[in-house]
Order: sequence, then C-alpha cells, then structure tokens
Amino acid sequence: MKPESSRVVWQGLSWRLRVETVILPDGSPLERGAIEHPGAVVMVPLQSSNGSFEVLMLRQYRHVVDEVILELPAGTRGWDEDWQACAQRELREETGYRAQTLTSLGRIWPAPGISNEVMALYLATELSLDPLAADLDEELQVQPMPLAELIAMAQDGRLQDAKSTIGILRAAVYLNNGV
Amino acid sequence: MKPESSRVVWQGLSWRLRVETVILPDGSPLERGAIEHPGAVVMVPLQSSNGSFEVLMLRQYRHVVDEVILELPAGTRGWDEDWQACAQRELREETGYRAQTLTSLGRIWPAPGISNEVMALYLATELSLDPLAADLDEELQVQPMPLAELIAMAQDGRLQDAKSTIGILRAAVYLNNGV
Repeated sequence: MKPESSRVVWQGLSWRLRVETVILPDGSPLERGAIEHPGAVVMVPLQSSNGSFEVLMLRQYRHVVDEVILELPAGTRGWDEDWQACAQRELREETGYRAQTLTSLGRIWPAPGISNEVMALYLATELSLDPLAADLDEELQVQPMPLAELIAMAQDGRLQDAKSTIGILRAAVYLNNGV
Repeated sequence: MKPESSRVVWQGLSWRLRVETVILPDGSPLERGAIEHPGAVVMVPLQSSNGSFEVLMLRQYRHVVDEVILELPAGTRGWDEDWQACAQRELREETGYRAQTLTSLGRIWPAPGISNEVMALYLATELSLDPLAADLDEELQVQPMPLAELIAMAQDGRLQDAKSTIGILRAAVYLNNGV
C-alpha cells in the first residue's frame, strides 16, 4: 500500500515522526506513524578481571519507561556520522574508555513495525581511559559485571533491554563462551 | 529531570507520541519524544517435523523499513486486552493456528530510549488449525523453518529483527537445544 499523503508531525533532536495516510483494500483510510531515525550504536565493552571477562554495563534512568534499567552503552548516531566514530564517541562519553578494537557483532532492527532505526553492535576491546563529556540529559552509572552472569541474565529474561540481550549473546558466541 | 510541559502530538490506531519539554542542568529547554504504547506479544510457534523442531516464521512487508523481513508472529495488544488472549488472537490471525499451550519466555523492552513498549514472549506449542481473519493492513506469508537454522541465524546476525532473535534464543534455551 503506497501512502496517499505524508507529513512530519514532530522533529526532535535526533529523530522525527512521519505520519502517512494509506487507503486500505476496503477503501477506508488509515493513518500510520513511522519514526525516521538515523540509527544507533551498541557496544559490548569487554575487559579481563582476574582471568575472566567483565563487561562495562550501565545503570541508566530512562524517562520513557520511568525506571533505572541495566543496559549496554549505546547512543544515537548523528545523521551523517560515521558508525565506528559514533561507537567510539558514545563509548568515551558513557564509560570514559576508548577501545583499541571494535569488532562488528552485526546489525538489528529494534522495532521495525514502528521505526526504521538500525542498531550496529560492536564488541569493544583493548580499553584505555579517555573520557569525553557526557550529554547533559543523561543520568547514568557504569557498572562492571561478569560476562558469565550477563549471559545467564540474557537467557533467563532478567536482562529486559533487547539490544543488550542480543549484544551479550552475540559477544558470547563470538568469544565461544559456551553459548 | 521532570518535564515542564507535556502534550500528545499524534494519536494512532495503537500508539501515540507524547512530547515533553524538560529544562537541562544548564537552564536550556529540551523537547524529547516518548512513544506511549500498549505493549505487544511475540510468539515462537513450534511443531515437530520428521523428528526435529520447526518454527512458523513470517515474511512480512514492513513499510517503515521498506523491506520484506523475516520475523516471528507478533502483534500489538489492545490497551485493555489480556496478554495471553492477545497472543492467541495474533497467532490465529497471522499463522492460522491456535496453541494449546503458551509458555512465557519473559519480557523485553525493544526500544526503552524512545518507547515504553513491553513485548511479552511466548513459546506456542500443541498447534491446531483455527484461523482468524487477518488485519487489512498486513502483508505477510507464513514460512516454516528449522529451529536449528534459526538459532544459527540469531547467533550470526542473519536474523536482524530484535524480538525474533531473542524469541528464538530464549526458546532454544528453554528446550535445551544446545544454546
């Protein structure tokens, strides 16, 4: 179904809402919303601690769900920003670390029924301190956690954030960590 | 940061966009969008075929990303609809089957930076034919696929839809299928 008409009803700092009107097979009109999004990056920052792997997770207040949630560092890309540069910038802003190596863990659509957002996932390794000032509207804390515990949480549902669940499980597969 | 003001800028058939204005720590105002969503269900419809497991996947045209994507059956809940009733209804509409048993595989937030949508995941087993008329705006085809192949696709990134990736991997863990 091709849209009969289309308009942007809101333009935010990083994404906008477009509303299209389509004509259904029975002739009636339907308004449907579509978020136009520049994409985002998700990082799995990995370091060794006493011989086992640890991931730098975040506890971040998300006003949309009104909860502090456990998630991987992530952030929205600028419309023209290079994906790897975006991953490095967000990693430095949110964790204070730079990664010597970023390894792709693939891409996902978080919500293709509503938004064209693509998330690019990266394993971030060989970390060194190199902080960048964080965004003013973010409220977060870094929390290092054992990879093995995060794998269990991704599998049994304690990890509720979709991008983080997939990032952890793909990292585990990449590292051959028993998944 | 508490919002200074808040308004609904668009109300669709199943979700709406609210825009809030907050004052940043430096005193400047920021508009931020938040999708208010009734939640959704995601099903992993499983059946045996020649002694191995098969999942009823969909190939569905998603106008938002302008692609036919491979995904699990899923659908938006009515604001007051019971979650299991919603899962059964969407399964019948999209695959033509009813499940004798729906087993929870947990809940996820697909995009908690933008939307308060919660997705409830279910393993759907003991399937029997019992179709319901599909929504007029949906363009989809049922495609049965081996569970083992879907697990590999979820792990290596060929499966790009987030809810489907997590549904398949959680089902595999539940069934002890080598994940």
